[in-house]
Amino acid sequence: MRNIVFAFSRRALLAALLGTALCNLGSALAQTPTDMLPSWNDGASKRAIVEFVGSVTQQSGPDFVPPAERIAVFDNDGTLWAEHPIYFQLAFVLDRVKALAPQHPEWMNNQPFKAALEGDMKTLAEAGDNGLLELVMASHAGMTTNEFEKIVKDWLASARHPTFKRPYTELAYQPMIELLTYLRANGFKTFIVSGGGIEFMRTFSEQVYGVPPEQVVGSSIKTKFEMRDGKPILFRLPQVNFIDDKDGKPVGINQYIGRRPIAAFGNSDGDLEMLQWTTMTGGGPRFGLIVHHTDAAREFAYDRNTSFGRLDKALDAAAVNNWTVVDMKNDWKHIFTFE
Amino acid sequence: MRNIVFAFSRRALLAALLGTALCNLGSALAQTPTDMLPSWNDGASKRAIVEFVGSVTQQSGPDFVPPAERIAVFDNDGTLWAEHPIYFQLAFVLDRVKALAPQHPEWMNNQPFKAALEGDMKTLAEAGDNGLLELVMASHAGMTTNEFEKIVKDWLASARHPTFKRPYTELAYQPMIELLTYLRANGFKTFIVSGGGIEFMRTFSEQVYGVPPEQVVGSSIKTKFEMRDGKPILFRLPQVNFIDDKDGKPVGINQYIGRRPIAAFGNSDGDLEMLQWTTMTGGGPRFGLIVHHTDAAREFAYDRNTSFGRLDKALDAAAVNNWTVVDMKNDWKHIFTFE
Repeated sequence: MRNIVFAFSRRALLAALLGTALCNLGSALAQTPTDMLPSWNDGASKRAIVEFVGSVTQQSGPDFVPPAERIAVFDNDGTLWAEHPIYFQLAFVLDRVKALAPQHPEWMNNQPFKAALEGDMKTLAEAGDNGLLELVMASHAGMTTNEFEKIVKDWLASARHPTFKRPYTELAYQPMIELLTYLRANGFKTFIVSGGGIEFMRTFSEQVYGVPPEQVVGSSIKTKFEMRDGKPILFRLPQVNFIDDKDGKPVGINQYIGRRPIAAFGNSDGDLEMLQWTTMTGGGPRFGLIVHHTDAAREFAYDRNTSFGRLDKALDAAAVNNWTVVDMKNDWKHIFTFE
Repeated sequence: MRNIVFAFSRRALLAALLGTALCNLGSALAQTPTDMLPSWNDGASKRAIVEFVGSVTQQSGPDFVPPAERIAVFDNDGTLWAEHPIYFQLAFVLDRVKALAPQHPEWMNNQPFKAALEGDMKTLAEAGDNGLLELVMASHAGMTTNEFEKIVKDWLASARHPTFKRPYTELAYQPMIELLTYLRANGFKTFIVSGGGIEFMRTFSEQVYGVPPEQVVGSSIKTKFEMRDGKPILFRLPQVNFIDDKDGKPVGINQYIGRRPIAAFGNSDGDLEMLQWTTMTGGGPRFGLIVHHTDAAREFAYDRNTSFGRLDKALDAAAVNNWTVVDMKNDWKHIFTFE
């Protein structure tokens, strides 16, 4: 492969080297300011983050990690944006079922559709995972990938969070957006690894988090390639393809990213295996962090007893494994950008 | 989200802007030399490539494409490296079955293992896809992901191509390596999208092609997360997860990359749907290219009649869709780096 280098003209080589050197200068300058995390209060959590990033980026240090291996993975619901009173994608499902109801008069007599249309959350909860799956398929399948993208974007533009009365995308956490930016400025490649729908998240991940579609890992349904009127399309089928949650997260990380992350950020038991896979390797520096929802005044307070984002086993594991636990109330100066 | 910008210090902002400006300068210089493709003879194929890249990178031009959307997808077998006399991963399968045979005395009496051990290619061919699948599972499953990576790397280090008597990784095409480098220098993100095994390719894709593991899409088997002796592992199961070939390629592109490529490079009917998905969109500039194996002296000559890399329907489609067809004999000055 060495021949490739010699095949370049000297001018191209010089330009390439110069470009790299200047880019490095840019990123070296970008590393310096510690106020890239202005929404974080000074304290143990912020200190742990800055120390970890400092150690893996110090070229002469014992914990140096080459940029290509600086992979950081982030859960979405409850880690990058809020997840109460219900997962935002579940709100999308319920709104979508309502929007489609006129074409499905039979839904008024069939569960779980009847409960969804009546907002009967108790019956919905009783319908369990299978009931939920029926609603997901009714709202997520049966259209092309392009059509689905438009449906989600239109919903995000018009739907409002029931408590905050704002678009759901404004419920992203300002400190976590700063953290994503800070990691990228230090050579990290940031990925979302979430139980949420991959095509749902990709409609806003770049705009809200700066994470491009190809760095989003999530749950998915199957799609089918077809030529329709001479144009190629992908049609969304009502069949589960992959569930990117719990022990599915390390599987998804390996399948999509193909290397082990050095840092993982989550908030619930759904992130336990991802944190284990990332940090319990025995080799090299690793960082695990859990966002603990402790602020009933500015956001929501919950952990071991909730249907959305239960944090129980992973909270116990954090103490054993030395993962950083963020206390939202005390560690975060601001929670949302609009504060 | 606008608040983020104001949250930065002015110094950080200046550094970030300066860094970007300098990086752009570097890449603008890198775009200039047309001799980034020195192994390509001057002719229609090279001209089509350079014109396409020129058009999508010209900021003021009508065909400008922002860097984030400059996604290019490459098939591997027969497009980036050779695939005759048999797919290289099939050579790995056969070698691996031989290496494991002492632990499986029953294989000497069972097909397709007997044929594999005796090098009886006729019986192997008759065993068809199901027979092949049995061999693949016997050689690819039943170990952790880390163990499999080591097995493949050891094999690549020791195995030799039967005709060229060189490591398989040296059978990568020099003109295509230059093309990958040229596209990346022009802001493209290059992906492999191949029917080959994703974890097989990831062991060499970065070193040979400069394509990191997270930009490799391929076929896969299922894996299972487990804690073993207090350490998390992923165990490889003998179950097909995804076949990234033919109409599976657009599905894989959507699943892994999540945006439509603007350029696709293939060599066989297995790439037809990927080329259709990439180029037949009706919007914006698109580029499709097929590598046609026409050089019996320096490599191999085959198209419509071969078991490995059949090019039939896609060759007809190339004429209709205005895809560039590379004539290896006449378009390529060198084929391999060792020439």
